[in-house]
Amino acid sequence: MKDKIIIAIDAMGGENSPEKIIEGLSIFLSKNKNLNNCFFNLYGDEKLILEKMSKFKLSNSNIKIFNTLSVVSDEETPLTAIKNSKNSSMWNSINSQISDGADISLSAGNTGVLFVISRMLLKTIEEVSKPALAGLWPNKKGVSVVLDLGANIECNEKNLIDFSEMGSALFKSLFKTQKPKVALLNIGSEEIKGTESIKKAYTKLKEVSSYGDFDFNGYVEADKIFEGDSNVIVADGFTGNIALKTAEGTSKFLTGALKESLKENFLSRFSLLFSYFSLKKFKDKLDPRKYNGAIFLGLKGPVVKSHGSTDAVGFYHSIDLCYNIIQGDLMSQIKKNLSHIDGNK
Amino acid sequence: MKDKIIIAIDAMGGENSPEKIIEGLSIFLSKNKNLNNCFFNLYGDEKLILEKMSKFKLSNSNIKIFNTLSVVSDEETPLTAIKNSKNSSMWNSINSQISDGADISLSAGNTGVLFVISRMLLKTIEEVSKPALAGLWPNKKGVSVVLDLGANIECNEKNLIDFSEMGSALFKSLFKTQKPKVALLNIGSEEIKGTESIKKAYTKLKEVSSYGDFDFNGYVEADKIFEGDSNVIVADGFTGNIALKTAEGTSKFLTGALKESLKENFLSRFSLLFSYFSLKKFKDKLDPRKYNGAIFLGLKGPVVKSHGSTDAVGFYHSIDLCYNIIQGDLMSQIKKNLSHIDGNK
Repeated sequence: MKDKIIIAIDAMGGENSPEKIIEGLSIFLSKNKNLNNCFFNLYGDEKLILEKMSKFKLSNSNIKIFNTLSVVSDEETPLTAIKNSKNSSMWNSINSQISDGADISLSAGNTGVLFVISRMLLKTIEEVSKPALAGLWPNKKGVSVVLDLGANIECNEKNLIDFSEMGSALFKSLFKTQKPKVALLNIGSEEIKGTESIKKAYTKLKEVSSYGDFDFNGYVEADKIFEGDSNVIVADGFTGNIALKTAEGTSKFLTGALKESLKENFLSRFSLLFSYFSLKKFKDKLDPRKYNGAIFLGLKGPVVKSHGSTDAVGFYHSIDLCYNIIQGDLMSQIKKNLSHIDGNK
Repeated sequence: MKDKIIIAIDAMGGENSPEKIIEGLSIFLSKNKNLNNCFFNLYGDEKLILEKMSKFKLSNSNIKIFNTLSVVSDEETPLTAIKNSKNSSMWNSINSQISDGADISLSAGNTGVLFVISRMLLKTIEEVSKPALAGLWPNKKGVSVVLDLGANIECNEKNLIDFSEMGSALFKSLFKTQKPKVALLNIGSEEIKGTESIKKAYTKLKEVSSYGDFDFNGYVEADKIFEGDSNVIVADGFTGNIALKTAEGTSKFLTGALKESLKENFLSRFSLLFSYFSLKKFKDKLDPRKYNGAIFLGLKGPVVKSHGSTDAVGFYHSIDLCYNIIQGDLMSQIKKNLSHIDGNK
């Protein structure tokens, strides 16, 4: 166990902040009562934060507030962010890794801006061609890491290999699996299918896989992601984003249609009484808030992005993710993995 | 109403054929008792076909059997298909549009081979840069056409514009909508997002849209496909295939988890009694067999691909789709739309 973990939080990003941020933090602390090694740097409007802390009965023995009044708006674009966002709660929470000893930064604010500022302040790891955005997906056997979810629209084979190494480092740090199984997302499982970058990455990954950081599972088709046979699913950011959003849309569409059906007549409404606990368990198991938190991989410090529209429970899961990432020593895992590829070996 | 429609069917393709083919045909005929203008050319083992026809009590007044003993195997690759598949039931059912007066061809066999043979025998329409594979997707408001589902891994803007014209022609022919709404699948809704091809297609589509074949809805993100605000969703074949398979996988994963939950204890199992009809209605509405049938667009004759693993009900829906495509005059709609773009205007 680490001696001291400091999580820097942008307390103002996303809908209904700082209320949900502070409530999320209070959930985390109440679930981890004996955690003595975890501290929080909060960036935002001190008055508001203190108000919410008193509402949720949070003492501040392990919380430091850095009064920051400027906030990045949802309308801000990555193009003008560097100029306009300096000293905002988001900026300062990322900079916290440089100036205030934080190990990781968390924000529910504007994704594009978060990515640009993180990249500028924390810098990309030398061996990494492009940083990537990774997420956690539920599957039949548990959870898998999927990346890139949209940071890089076009990717070459070197990018895809870096993503494989970083994704398996993340999986390893979260789930203590020695050799995660990595697969490339493709439109067929035969070796000859796919784009040039994917085919080249396939050949190279078979080789890299022999260094022992992960087992290469070959190609996975999108309908098999949920089978859970691979722990890490690698794609370019365009493809990963399409898969992520299609899954979200399908899930919303199906659960909406199901809800409507079950409410449509007396008998089926009656049945809800009997199936209440089972349906609740179903809902809980697949609750998207449990998987809330995308991780920017490839920078010299880790940054987690929470959904802007999530609630306190969702934000709690992002805090938990931050804690587990540092506890699992993500940065050392990434460095170790990267040392095995290319000229670094 | 057309005087005469001839549908050519590969009676041997896919699992459990020709049984499911003949049973599917018998469902179609029993649901369309007064249809006097529809005829079928069946290609396959005559003895087997007659056996199944007698099993399902089909008279052959509107059915012509062309005895064809060779069958394309599932293992056949597109590379060797032209050499190995000549005079197979698949080959002959496509060729039926040239030699035996058929208006459309339908097969549940090997997709890659079907695509290669169709392209070779029927030829691509002069104005079309690349043929595409289109499918029907359920959504909150009805059904949308999505293409390309995997025929072309990489696409430029000209391809995407052709897909838009052909997709809206298909939607028009099936649903009698004068101006379908077309959207480009992308990872954001802002004009500056996406790959170069997508951005160029966006600019061009705004222009083409003014000719009146369709309304251009701009970009659609993958989680919004199911909202049903666009009738035609256009993507390159890689992206379309990822979206299709992700939706299939998510749907399978969710319904599987739901089923397990509802069966897990006595009370919830009991609840199934009361919700039986509602759940059945839910299942019926989203039954993938209803949307069975992908359409090759851009060849000089239309070809429909049924899922290989579907059953008789699924195959019936493919036959129904073929009938509606010809009844709605797809080929004229495509020609009309294509005449409006580029130099053809």
